[in-house]
Amino acid sequence: MPELRQDPTSKEWIIIATERARRPHDFRSAAQKAQQPAYDEACPFCPGHEAATPPEVLARRTQGAANEPGWSLRVVPNRFAALLPQGSTDRHIEQDFFRWMEGVGYHEVIIETPFHNRSMARMERGEVKAVLEAYRDRWLALRADHRVEHILVFKNYGEAAGTSLVHPHSQLVATPVVPAHVRLTNEEAVRYLDATGHCLYCDLVDSERRAGERVLLETAEFIVFHPFASGTPFETWIVPKRHQSVYTQVRMEQLTDLAGVLQGVLARLADLLNDPDYNYILHSAPLDAEDEDYFHWHLQIVPRLTQIAGFEIGSGMRINTARPEDTARYWRG
Amino acid sequence: MPELRQDPTSKEWIIIATERARRPHDFRSAAQKAQQPAYDEACPFCPGHEAATPPEVLARRTQGAANEPGWSLRVVPNRFAALLPQGSTDRHIEQDFFRWMEGVGYHEVIIETPFHNRSMARMERGEVKAVLEAYRDRWLALRADHRVEHILVFKNYGEAAGTSLVHPHSQLVATPVVPAHVRLTNEEAVRYLDATGHCLYCDLVDSERRAGERVLLETAEFIVFHPFASGTPFETWIVPKRHQSVYTQVRMEQLTDLAGVLQGVLARLADLLNDPDYNYILHSAPLDAEDEDYFHWHLQIVPRLTQIAGFEIGSGMRINTARPEDTARYWRG
Repeated sequence: MPELRQDPTSKEWIIIATERARRPHDFRSAAQKAQQPAYDEACPFCPGHEAATPPEVLARRTQGAANEPGWSLRVVPNRFAALLPQGSTDRHIEQDFFRWMEGVGYHEVIIETPFHNRSMARMERGEVKAVLEAYRDRWLALRADHRVEHILVFKNYGEAAGTSLVHPHSQLVATPVVPAHVRLTNEEAVRYLDATGHCLYCDLVDSERRAGERVLLETAEFIVFHPFASGTPFETWIVPKRHQSVYTQVRMEQLTDLAGVLQGVLARLADLLNDPDYNYILHSAPLDAEDEDYFHWHLQIVPRLTQIAGFEIGSGMRINTARPEDTARYWRG
Repeated sequence: MPELRQDPTSKEWIIIATERARRPHDFRSAAQKAQQPAYDEACPFCPGHEAATPPEVLARRTQGAANEPGWSLRVVPNRFAALLPQGSTDRHIEQDFFRWMEGVGYHEVIIETPFHNRSMARMERGEVKAVLEAYRDRWLALRADHRVEHILVFKNYGEAAGTSLVHPHSQLVATPVVPAHVRLTNEEAVRYLDATGHCLYCDLVDSERRAGERVLLETAEFIVFHPFASGTPFETWIVPKRHQSVYTQVRMEQLTDLAGVLQGVLARLADLLNDPDYNYILHSAPLDAEDEDYFHWHLQIVPRLTQIAGFEIGSGMRINTARPEDTARYWRG
């Protein structure tokens, strides 16, 4: 059983999940990304290998029964899960300091396509939209479990981004605690709301639009920019123009728009930077904040062009070697 | 000129330093670590190449003039500095949100040895002690600049740890702000002091000693353990048994002891894990807290065995695939 432990010096929770050390790794080099076949006999996510994953919790299929081929998208529990559904959220404390709880929660894999080599940058808009819908559907399903306090959806693309499998997928982790880092960001937004009566992110979007020089593009529903205080070169935010605190509030017309924007941004990133490794993270308010005004869901893309080193680990500060004004100009090119 | 920018959503400062994109990189593969010569014609840190760095600010030498060969240790400003001494700490704000200041501060390199391939794990105790003394001496020198608010000393060993040069070195960055992450950790310690009258770290050391199972070794002056809430496998803390908030309070007999402990821990790490890449970070209270009881300087070693991925970036939480009790037993074994 995984375990959550609280760092007594920072109050942040960490997850101990020894099963994850047994994950298979098929990522050997960045060069491999371009050379993948559409089907890989050894891949647990390719069609026909459904038995290699736990049974699916969601699927889009035109034919076949559950856990058989015929699907276009599949969501399954992570076989090497960081958190597991069984267990209690009771806290235990030992020797005054060592606070821990069972590692309860959910860790799911969204297998985005049956095609082993169809990265999101190469998908049709409809395929990306199906992935975004799956995020929303699983979000809605999992928040029904009252032990879940926060849900994070993310994608690790490429070895430097922490991927262990090539086959296009993203992940969802539902935690029984609000991470301290998330709590802190929320507190900033609440303070801003208290002081101004406005959503911090709505006002920030207005300011980025007025400044203009970091904006990449704008659609009916979204604005995309390299943020003023980017921590890494080409860090990109995709922010809905409507005020919505939680991702589950997203509407169908927004998802259609977002699918095109996200695919386009990833394709441009691959073009400009030779298919770099990247993470994206879907940030959203905690689950009980749907009617709150303070947070504003958004998608953050972090290309992994530089390495985190001792300064970043020790200070929490990032050193960015590029000005976002310059990367945005290059991007708009 | 580098620039500091504050992220309006987290209040953390980031550094924009475009000069650093021009750093030379001579790290090609982990295998190279074992194959380095004692002298490398192309290395800017090897003796005889003193002109390849800015003039030294500290050196230990038995012969030769400043910036000539004959030194056993040398401290120089980083040629590709993240922060520079000239400038003002005035804050500027644009479009309501975009708070920035000039990137003032210090970024120094401690060249630990004239020998290109003499990693700290292979040094004599006296050589390591000289490095630790250099940290203290530069700390004392730089805190005299009233613009400096925090000093971080760290080492990046190996490519995965963010090193760009092989030659054994560590770094010091003096920032004109207290990083938000550091502020937070300090606040936890202050809260603990207010509630109990004790230093959080002194009490934590007592608890780790009582628990025992994560302790690696103990000397007259130091205790070494894999902390209860380790974020990565083999994360190691070296903590002085005396209560001292700031590193500059360290005494000579402690430095002698610490030099042996640090070298021994790094040598054991190299033996056990096939010379892994790692960072170490010297954590200390902010500069004005020398007489405060709440913080307690210590050294944190973070082997880079796993990659930070989307979950960690988005949540701030870490997933550790090993129990520190198990890694400590393996270490002692």
